[in-house]
Amino acid sequence: MKAVAVDLGGTNIKAAIVDKEKGIIEQTSNPTHAELGRDHLLDRISKTIKELTSNHDVIGVGMGLPGMVNHDQTIVRNPPNLPGWEKVHAADEISRRTNLDCRIENDANIAALGSLHFGVGQRYNDFIIITLGTGVGGGIIINKKLYKGTHGMAGELGHVILDYHGPLSNSVTRGTVEAYLGQKFLSRFATDLIMQQTSNPLYSKFHRDFDKLEPVDLTMEADEGNELAIEILRKSGERLGYAIINYTHMLDIRKYVLSGGVSRAGNWLFEPARDIIKKHMMLPFQEDLELVYEDLGNDSALLGAAGLAFDSFA
Amino acid sequence: MKAVAVDLGGTNIKAAIVDKEKGIIEQTSNPTHAELGRDHLLDRISKTIKELTSNHDVIGVGMGLPGMVNHDQTIVRNPPNLPGWEKVHAADEISRRTNLDCRIENDANIAALGSLHFGVGQRYNDFIIITLGTGVGGGIIINKKLYKGTHGMAGELGHVILDYHGPLSNSVTRGTVEAYLGQKFLSRFATDLIMQQTSNPLYSKFHRDFDKLEPVDLTMEADEGNELAIEILRKSGERLGYAIINYTHMLDIRKYVLSGGVSRAGNWLFEPARDIIKKHMMLPFQEDLELVYEDLGNDSALLGAAGLAFDSFA
Repeated sequence: MKAVAVDLGGTNIKAAIVDKEKGIIEQTSNPTHAELGRDHLLDRISKTIKELTSNHDVIGVGMGLPGMVNHDQTIVRNPPNLPGWEKVHAADEISRRTNLDCRIENDANIAALGSLHFGVGQRYNDFIIITLGTGVGGGIIINKKLYKGTHGMAGELGHVILDYHGPLSNSVTRGTVEAYLGQKFLSRFATDLIMQQTSNPLYSKFHRDFDKLEPVDLTMEADEGNELAIEILRKSGERLGYAIINYTHMLDIRKYVLSGGVSRAGNWLFEPARDIIKKHMMLPFQEDLELVYEDLGNDSALLGAAGLAFDSFA
Repeated sequence: MKAVAVDLGGTNIKAAIVDKEKGIIEQTSNPTHAELGRDHLLDRISKTIKELTSNHDVIGVGMGLPGMVNHDQTIVRNPPNLPGWEKVHAADEISRRTNLDCRIENDANIAALGSLHFGVGQRYNDFIIITLGTGVGGGIIINKKLYKGTHGMAGELGHVILDYHGPLSNSVTRGTVEAYLGQKFLSRFATDLIMQQTSNPLYSKFHRDFDKLEPVDLTMEADEGNELAIEILRKSGERLGYAIINYTHMLDIRKYVLSGGVSRAGNWLFEPARDIIKKHMMLPFQEDLELVYEDLGNDSALLGAAGLAFDSFA
């Protein structure tokens, strides 16, 4: 069984033919050129799909994109980086142009579907994926299906509050998971601490331009034994632990798949999270609790988009 | 269609015949006498069921009780106030004695089922009930079904963290919803503030024994225009607002049914909650959001237990 997968990003459109067993078997990438407008973009996506399917029988199209997607997985609202896309019936627009069934889903949920169909998520009936990137997103899989909520917006894990007095993230909510673990906020938190330790190697490396400090730099320093880097990641990991306590106490889902750039810090982040969970999660919920790192690589969004098509049309 | 409903509490066992259309049509109540042991209690419950069903055809038995209930709604663990009940196959024990199918569920989920079958929950496909009583519990209804999670323990809404630096409740978690809104904690918070205002009527009424201060006293004083009482309930309502933000951002469920003793404060609590939601919940989630007070009266647990039987055996 094969499907077309599309990953519509602000910079590039990737598309692929994905086989349910073999994974990606053919792939293309083109610049997005969102500035040329909505119809132009939809035309080009459709043309790419038609080219890819000229040699393949497919069951349909799955497309991942930023923004809020409705319950039926057909309409997207306000995708960042796509001007003129306030409310677009994207699935129908693609179907009309390609004569193929199409469903769309936002990036965080696509990551969940990627793990469900091609990653560690294959092992679980219920799991939550936490994507620790520029922002913090997530997807909730219940009984091997994506949970969308009443209006399709469920799984805004990054906007769950851990401290209602806490720092603002770029949303309207204070002290959210994203305000601690989003890449920008984590770097800012690190900067504050590094500026107080001028003898630290992190200070010498970044004091000229702290904007260049990324979580991977903290991980590399932690690997070298830099106590400050370890401490910064430990604090962040503890907050991840509190987040997982909240998700678990609500949903009684005990499998967590961690992905995205920040999660590459691995056990520097996960061990402190596990310590907090051990200490502060209600005991019966701790049984069988697992935190697993997953990196499906550059093609994860395409695999997830294909998963969406398999779930929708198979 | 009729079912037997049992409400097993630490003090009394209530039981009833409940008709799906007409509600409770026959009812009994007896002291629990948990100290006489598990088998004695199960025998007496079963005897009561047999007496009630001598004149009625029923589809089965639903029983509400404290404690953690497994996914299959048959086994209860560690119910408080029931010594000797560490792990009991309560549904099977009742079935064996009565020849009737039986399912059990914990009190908070029973409240959700009561609302779903006999209360405002009838109007909604998806809703969350928050029971604000001695503790804070809850139940999650998705697509008109109780959501139980992987191991049956979902909906511990009172143990969702709002401030991970915050006060301990009697659980292992800090700054939880229950640590602010549980009756005991709310009274303690009120006491602290009242002790600083010796001229306040609440001080004169309770300074000899603050243990007697209950949320209803705050509500009565607020109704009289007592600014301090209004302020205490406002603060508590704001915390309820943050809790609802967390539940909504995760699950995208937008209907909240508020019940239990503390919720009788009504708009003294709900208006500040709505203010916080308006200010701090992501805008798209605010559409169609509703907070509704519900009081199904003394029989709510019986109605919920009957709902469990209807869902399980109808």
